Amino acid sequence: MNSSLNSIVGRLIEILGKEWVITDREMMESYLRDETPEPMRPKPTSAAVLVKPSSTKEVSQILKLSDEMRIPVFPVGGRTGLVGGSIPTKPGIILSLERMKKISIDRDNLMAVAEAGSTLGDLIKASEDAGLFFPPHPGDEGAQIGGLIATNAGGVRAVKYGVIRSYVKGIEAVLPSGEIITLGGKLLKNNTGYDLMQLIIGSEGTLCVVTKVVIKLHPKSPFTATLILPFPNRSEALKCAKKILLSDIVPLALEYVGLKEILMAAEHLNEEWPVQFGNAQLIITLTGTSEDELLSACEKISRISEEHNVGETVLAERKEEQEKILRVRSNIYTSLKPRMVDILDVTVPPSNLDALMGFVDEVSRRYGVYLPVYGHAGDGNLHIHIMQEEGKEMDYAEKVKREVYEACVRFGGVITGEHGIGKIRTEDIRLVLGKKELELMKEIKKLFDPNNILNPGAVFSKI
Amino acid sequence: MNSSLNSIVGRLIEILGKEWVITDREMMESYLRDETPEPMRPKPTSAAVLVKPSSTKEVSQILKLSDEMRIPVFPVGGRTGLVGGSIPTKPGIILSLERMKKISIDRDNLMAVAEAGSTLGDLIKASEDAGLFFPPHPGDEGAQIGGLIATNAGGVRAVKYGVIRSYVKGIEAVLPSGEIITLGGKLLKNNTGYDLMQLIIGSEGTLCVVTKVVIKLHPKSPFTATLILPFPNRSEALKCAKKILLSDIVPLALEYVGLKEILMAAEHLNEEWPVQFGNAQLIITLTGTSEDELLSACEKISRISEEHNVGETVLAERKEEQEKILRVRSNIYTSLKPRMVDILDVTVPPSNLDALMGFVDEVSRRYGVYLPVYGHAGDGNLHIHIMQEEGKEMDYAEKVKREVYEACVRFGGVITGEHGIGKIRTEDIRLVLGKKELELMKEIKKLFDPNNILNPGAVFSKI
Repeated sequence: MNSSLNSIVGRLIEILGKEWVITDREMMESYLRDETPEPMRPKPTSAAVLVKPSSTKEVSQILKLSDEMRIPVFPVGGRTGLVGGSIPTKPGIILSLERMKKISIDRDNLMAVAEAGSTLGDLIKASEDAGLFFPPHPGDEGAQIGGLIATNAGGVRAVKYGVIRSYVKGIEAVLPSGEIITLGGKLLKNNTGYDLMQLIIGSEGTLCVVTKVVIKLHPKSPFTATLILPFPNRSEALKCAKKILLSDIVPLALEYVGLKEILMAAEHLNEEWPVQFGNAQLIITLTGTSEDELLSACEKISRISEEHNVGETVLAERKEEQEKILRVRSNIYTSLKPRMVDILDVTVPPSNLDALMGFVDEVSRRYGVYLPVYGHAGDGNLHIHIMQEEGKEMDYAEKVKREVYEACVRFGGVITGEHGIGKIRTEDIRLVLGKKELELMKEIKKLFDPNNILNPGAVFSKI
Repeated sequence: MNSSLNSIVGRLIEILGKEWVITDREMMESYLRDETPEPMRPKPTSAAVLVKPSSTKEVSQILKLSDEMRIPVFPVGGRTGLVGGSIPTKPGIILSLERMKKISIDRDNLMAVAEAGSTLGDLIKASEDAGLFFPPHPGDEGAQIGGLIATNAGGVRAVKYGVIRSYVKGIEAVLPSGEIITLGGKLLKNNTGYDLMQLIIGSEGTLCVVTKVVIKLHPKSPFTATLILPFPNRSEALKCAKKILLSDIVPLALEYVGLKEILMAAEHLNEEWPVQFGNAQLIITLTGTSEDELLSACEKISRISEEHNVGETVLAERKEEQEKILRVRSNIYTSLKPRMVDILDVTVPPSNLDALMGFVDEVSRRYGVYLPVYGHAGDGNLHIHIMQEEGKEMDYAEKVKREVYEACVRFGGVITGEHGIGKIRTEDIRLVLGKKELELMKEIKKLFDPNNILNPGAVFSKI
């Protein structure tokens, strides 16, 4: 540990008590990485102090002290990110809010108030226990609420009601100065000044540390059904997806997967995937207020998909069966991970999905590398994996990424739909944002964090 | 006209041509006011030039010139605002984008691209003509898209899918420097840097001039039904509203009105209101993908409302009948306007609506003034009117407003849910926002508009 860090440890212990100031390297090992594929993952610092405050006041004291001493602070959540966003890359403090995990449910207002360290799993459970429903499902349930806000998490269930941003109604956050700000509340409409809350959502721990969040819930779990539709090829699958989205059915989720990748994911989990044929598959989750409503939507989808040579469709209605489908789908990433160089997260206007995937095929052939593609067809958000090829130098990865990003921009898209910029896309962002947009963002960073102590190395603390 | 304005006219004519630079006072009369009640309405300047550019490039040239010469620019839309937001209160340029009104509909992506000068009515029509649907209805259809963005407009149809913010996916805007920025696109997910677009939404023409907007549409007009439920008193109506929101029905709109006010509005329009009894009424609009779905929701509402002594309910299914109900509801404001001092726009957590309305009753009795209250019960957003009392000095209005605002803050609310701050709430905002929040907002204003030329007198150019 370096000397300025050494000198802060005593003062951190005064604030938090000895138990919650961790300097032992082994005990902080899991805080030094996230889910970013290993070849792309930023190298963590060799000098860090891990702190675990129990209250907003303690967070405030830690930040004030760090700001005064110009010591970097890396806020971490569940470390489920894919772009190295929370990895401490400089000597500094790792700030985990895992002890701040209270959730209270306000049934009358259909709102949850969650501390930032509570997990997605906690929130889903607390909502269900109160007879309410939190629709989105941005992947790993170990993700923490603070991280969901910091990354404006998306996931498979964003087609009908939008991403996390749509659910956040209030925020409490601590600025690097230690000042605590509160924005919004249990409010469905609020036009009282500039919406700083929206600016903070998706700011990846670089502007302030979110400590508490007000989240909108839905009344009751609706009836749900999940369909798997196998198509002979991608083009038919995507045409069908487009027609479904243009019908009066708004699915909760509409996913595209290739047969090869979904079977690999099932094998990885030791599960059986219910549809063993059809190279290109759509997985559609529907919600409704009655079984009749769902069945009628299923019939409509069935009629539409028949025009596109669909194979025998599977309809899952039992909760366990639907959860299994979601679980297998969510584990395409983990099954590919061991041989993965990078996972891209581009988003294009949905009508350009087919063209973008065609381009990726062409790149795959040209470089002779396996580039599995799947994702959220309902909202144009694709995950393109760049895989390792045995005996091949990995320098193709950067070139492949660049080509895909440039194509994506040509198609009216952006380089990240949900994963964010983190610490590994800070240069790529220039492909999407102009000089002036970047300048404004950099100035906003300075405004919130004049000494650049918050998550240095991440976007706008670096550019 | 003052001398610096005089000196700019020639240069504006060079940019726009003589026809689109208007100095004649009579021809700009309607640009000097909005829908703010007369006693509260800010006094317009006696020296202004009205310009009507036809392109983003011309907007850019106008702003660059004004910035260099430090001449205020007041962007105006349809002038349907209620807080004097667009009124030019200082000698300067009135910037109307009314000639920039192209709308293109992209059916494949369910998006509209609308220039800022197109109206809400234009957008609704263009969407319908393409077989698509724009759900929100923030009041006057003469409102322009730029104004809807600038004020993050809300309205009656925000319960199910949210306010305008939820529909905006991309923005093109011009900064005071003349630089053009573009943010987002035909994209449903985008985490590429800080979300400046969200910051611009609701910034009331003080940060930049929005010239073009990408707006999400829904597929097809759904089946809709509108119910009017008459209750003997407010308490029963609000209890019923709460239970409906906790059921599995998510209405498109859920409005509360008093019998007296809705009958006045009907009379004002020379229409007959379908329910002549029940002092407190709920107006509920439902959408669904089939008539069966709607009828089943109506039955559920009927069962819930019977527990609250509902009177005979009216169910409107014909489009004309439903439009009439919306029209009468939307005209409570216009019918009250001639005798109105101010219209408040507070928002509280929905569960506190009854308590807030009780407090308003008490204030009404204490001051001996008529304070009609109605609004968007589904999202906790209430409009409280402060009426003139014959023979009474109007100085009670400020006191009443202050008492209501303070109560609203005690109840966890804010002073504006949809109307914004404009030029008449710039002091009141301090009741809701802390010193630090205000400071950050002021610094953001400086960042975008260092010479404070954009809409001076509005929030953060004043505080």
